[in-house]
Amino acid sequence: MSDFIEKTLDDQLIYDGAVVKLHKYTVALPNGKTAYREIVRHPGAVCVLPLTDDNEVICVRQFRFPFGRVLTELPAGKLDSPDEDPLEAARRELREETGAIAGKMTYLGDLYPSVAIFDENIRMYLATELSFGQTDPDDDEFLDILRIPLDELVAQILRGEITDAKTQTAVLKVAAMQK
Amino acid sequence: MSDFIEKTLDDQLIYDGAVVKLHKYTVALPNGKTAYREIVRHPGAVCVLPLTDDNEVICVRQFRFPFGRVLTELPAGKLDSPDEDPLEAARRELREETGAIAGKMTYLGDLYPSVAIFDENIRMYLATELSFGQTDPDDDEFLDILRIPLDELVAQILRGEITDAKTQTAVLKVAAMQK
Repeated sequence: MSDFIEKTLDDQLIYDGAVVKLHKYTVALPNGKTAYREIVRHPGAVCVLPLTDDNEVICVRQFRFPFGRVLTELPAGKLDSPDEDPLEAARRELREETGAIAGKMTYLGDLYPSVAIFDENIRMYLATELSFGQTDPDDDEFLDILRIPLDELVAQILRGEITDAKTQTAVLKVAAMQK
Repeated sequence: MSDFIEKTLDDQLIYDGAVVKLHKYTVALPNGKTAYREIVRHPGAVCVLPLTDDNEVICVRQFRFPFGRVLTELPAGKLDSPDEDPLEAARRELREETGAIAGKMTYLGDLYPSVAIFDENIRMYLATELSFGQTDPDDDEFLDILRIPLDELVAQILRGEITDAKTQTAVLKVAAMQK
């Protein structure tokens, strides 16, 4: 497969934003031709599936600007920096968004949201043995918390009602692990 | 939930690329404060889970520049325009990348890869009753085709070996539907 590699000939930083950086790379294709790659770089993120002893999933609903509406999702957030420990970030986001503290965190794998143009990696965790304190959302974060039985959430996903990628993947993974 | 809505105060087009557009929006938060949203706009995409009569999934392996390595994925591609019929795009990508023609296409729902900053929607389809002709990859597309039994692909996902979001979601969905 090594003959599939694209060699970088030029790297142009188009935009250096608060969250993302946009690069335009000039690459040499395996056939020697030149092509361009518009790549969005992101510090990385985490998501957490908080599962209660009653097999309920703690979800959040929040307004998502790109879609102009409120979506149901798992608690999640971006890393403060690419060097931040993802497990610590997952514990922080879980506590800030839902008030939950997990006695046990189980790594569920990585999720690459959109592999052609975006280098974001969302690390997924299962949080169990939960206890609850106060929520502490970010200043620009407005969300509702709700509990949905895991089986019902799977049914919503199979009906196409949950669109968020990290939520679909992590919920279906945990459900498959319980079989 | 209507009090969660963010009102757009300003829309600055940072970059108008071949695939993506990057906007920086100034928004009014529900609490009246002002915030910025860096949003990547994308024409939309499709992915296809081609399932043989032997319950094998036809996957592709290709170099993904953002990660600098070859990934195993379902066949997929972006819409030629936001107005293109996703089902037609799915049939096209399936044929171009794998040579397969589906007697039956079943819609599996939408996937929003990264809801905070990215408006891409990947429509997912299950392709069955397959027949096979010639592949016809894009000029800048280099890929290997492989068949993986559905059960084995699920096991790879549960072990964290498949990272691509659309592939994890669509495979786990179809596996859950077969239970």
